Amino acid sequence: MKTVLISGFEPFGGMPLNPALEAIRVLTGTELPDLGVIKTVTVPVVHRTSIATVISAIDDNEPDAVIMVGLAPGRIGIMPERIAINMDDFRLVDNEGNQIIDQPVVDGGPAAYFSTLPVKAMVQEMRRAGIPAAVSNSAGTFVCNHLFYGVMHELRDSHIRAGFIHVPLLPGQAIKADEPSMSLERIIKGISICAETVLSVQKDIFVSGGEIA
Amino acid sequence: MKTVLISGFEPFGGMPLNPALEAIRVLTGTELPDLGVIKTVTVPVVHRTSIATVISAIDDNEPDAVIMVGLAPGRIGIMPERIAINMDDFRLVDNEGNQIIDQPVVDGGPAAYFSTLPVKAMVQEMRRAGIPAAVSNSAGTFVCNHLFYGVMHELRDSHIRAGFIHVPLLPGQAIKADEPSMSLERIIKGISICAETVLSVQKDIFVSGGEIA
Amino acid sequence: MKTVLISGFEPFGGMPLNPALEAIRVLTGTELPDLGVIKTVTVPVVHRTSIATVISAIDDNEPDAVIMVGLAPGRIGIMPERIAINMDDFRLVDNEGNQIIDQPVVDGGPAAYFSTLPVKAMVQEMRRAGIPAAVSNSAGTFVCNHLFYGVMHELRDSHIRAGFIHVPLLPGQAIKADEPSMSLERIIKGISICAETVLSVQKDIFVSGGEIA
Amino acid sequence: MKTVLISGFEPFGGMPLNPALEAIRVLTGTELPDLGVIKTVTVPVVHRTSIATVISAIDDNEPDAVIMVGLAPGRIGIMPERIAINMDDFRLVDNEGNQIIDQPVVDGGPAAYFSTLPVKAMVQEMRRAGIPAAVSNSAGTFVCNHLFYGVMHELRDSHIRAGFIHVPLLPGQAIKADEPSMSLERIIKGISICAETVLSVQKDIFVSGGEIA
Repeated sequence: MKTVLISGFEPFGGMPLNPALEAIRVLTGTELPDLGVIKTVTVPVVHRTSIATVISAIDDNEPDAVIMVGLAPGRIGIMPERIAINMDDFRLVDNEGNQIIDQPVVDGGPAAYFSTLPVKAMVQEMRRAGIPAAVSNSAGTFVCNHLFYGVMHELRDSHIRAGFIHVPLLPGQAIKADEPSMSLERIIKGISICAETVLSVQKDIFVSGGEIA
Repeated sequence: MKTVLISGFEPFGGMPLNPALEAIRVLTGTELPDLGVIKTVTVPVVHRTSIATVISAIDDNEPDAVIMVGLAPGRIGIMPERIAINMDDFRLVDNEGNQIIDQPVVDGGPAAYFSTLPVKAMVQEMRRAGIPAAVSNSAGTFVCNHLFYGVMHELRDSHIRAGFIHVPLLPGQAIKADEPSMSLERIIKGISICAETVLSVQKDIFVSGGEIA
Repeated sequence: MKTVLISGFEPFGGMPLNPALEAIRVLTGTELPDLGVIKTVTVPVVHRTSIATVISAIDDNEPDAVIMVGLAPGRIGIMPERIAINMDDFRLVDNEGNQIIDQPVVDGGPAAYFSTLPVKAMVQEMRRAGIPAAVSNSAGTFVCNHLFYGVMHELRDSHIRAGFIHVPLLPGQAIKADEPSMSLERIIKGISICAETVLSVQKDIFVSGGEIA
Repeated sequence: MKTVLISGFEPFGGMPLNPALEAIRVLTGTELPDLGVIKTVTVPVVHRTSIATVISAIDDNEPDAVIMVGLAPGRIGIMPERIAINMDDFRLVDNEGNQIIDQPVVDGGPAAYFSTLPVKAMVQEMRRAGIPAAVSNSAGTFVCNHLFYGVMHELRDSHIRAGFIHVPLLPGQAIKADEPSMSLERIIKGISICAETVLSVQKDIFVSGGEIA
């Protein structure tokens, strides 16, 4: 029985909800038949504390894989991130009022870490299930990327596979029809498919998923 | 017992599905408690025939209100249209191969007809239910606007209220995450809310819903 | 020697500049070889006063054609508008603090007037000159559409051809790279091409320029 | 007298022009008063050859700084890139027909290199000159990022500062008004400002320029 640890951020930026958090509330304890079980952890949108929270949950749960989930307003689909960069450049303050500008996540750390999740296979399986999805080449420079980098750095010599997924706004967060959104049901299904894919696919598939720029 | 007639277009432009058609399949016969019942009609995406099909269904069903529904790829929310214009300018051929350019829908007809549905109240009720929605000021110049104008012209001296609603792509039609989409469940709920609103609101509410340009 | 009257709006919405006004400042008095001359009028962004200002300038200048120009933040190219609708629904207050909601521009007026300018030929000539351009099917519901409708109504029995053109933000108004823009030189050239086209083309060309929705 | 080497790509993807190439044609030999001179190199849009071409030009010109310039269709402003990643994932074939998928640019190279140009100061100076500009956190996964990474890797132990700038389409490449564009004059001015900034600013300024995601 394998374990996937899925982390979800609390609300931020004045929004009352975060679809990442709503999704992991539903997913916690879910069994993936013949594959494993989903454990979850709620993460504060705070510099450093976010990383410590997920690392502590990794220690407690000893998962086979870690999928971190965050909200990216403006995105159309569920987007596995390809790479975490060693750079904090916060456009907003985090939930404890920190606005970090042009500081490394880890002093002396490498410039970036690639996701060790099978991002192309995850996208393919979500699309097969009718869920809009694509690989993203930037997780931004706010707390999402901060957590992603910090965890990848911690796990750099570990066998545990890890990576980050951005999800769109919920429909109720976009009722003026000026930002794209995705239903919570579909977001939950997409994350669940990602968890199954991580446990069932060792080597990522070989298909184009790049961007011109 | 009042009747709302809801029309839905067939697929067009090479797409295998049209969310408008999928929605009316589910909505047909639905009872709106204390308000009325939904009847539906499937409409071919064809110049002239589309109008004749809905007018025939109006004759058969003698509805109190008519809501025409069509697909607008690229839209984020459900958008009641404010106005139908007397202009066909087809970017694509319709489903019988017609490409009409800069012809009036009705020779000698007025330049436009306003929707007689309570578009602001419909938007407000959809938003209250967590559904992205907004008033639109252009139904385009393809078969959607053609049908909308043709039916408004036919009903110009009638007591029957009528108008048009554009809906987004389904998630399965936008799996590459390059166009916004909305779940079929939410589209169906939105159209149902519009039907209830039409039957329960006589005079539209007074709130801003305009656009700069 | 023919005359084209070009109107340009003053700044609004808290912006210090309006590209429409900057353009007509340069265009005023321009001779169009073998065709005519450009006269201009500055228009306050104010309910009613805007219409009265342009009508007064028409009386003074007795033009052969009228091209009204306004700013549409978010537009990518220069967009001749196809139709003016009899509806004020201001999202913002105008420059005298009026916020008109769901009122007709002209009580008892028809629902809409089509532009009497050769909009397709204007777009074609601008594109030939390397200027991004397209026909638009909605001039919005703010003071731009208000003026457009009001002037078309005044000229409804006149031989004077008239219509409206929306232009994008200037680059200096979009320095954060979050809205598209166009250089003032190109906006001026585009408007000048439109003026030449109006004087040289009687009957619009027959090409598709429509929208699905 | 210092030297800035600016590279510009040839056209690709079936387009007849590349604004990067048009710009460096004009910039070659330009003197930046009291600062230095601009030298340029034309770069084929080809895997490996692109890197070799710029490295050869660096050897020949012994520049103090290198600014690589490429086209990013869809971008609104001039965007200095923050980071190059060790990943080729070509959505299109390059100009010699190569479509590389999920291969590192340099086998065994680090995951990424940060630009050593003062990207925040460059954005600030361009904005002051009325040019839409912003920092970008992804140069994509096509030949632009490939060249960027390859050159940063080559210069990893060098004092030569280097980085990449993406520019928008030219107006003549976007005449249907469906993609944002920028005039060649403004693109040239923006690149020139970047060159001046690189030669005059040693340490980048400290201002927020990040993205949520």
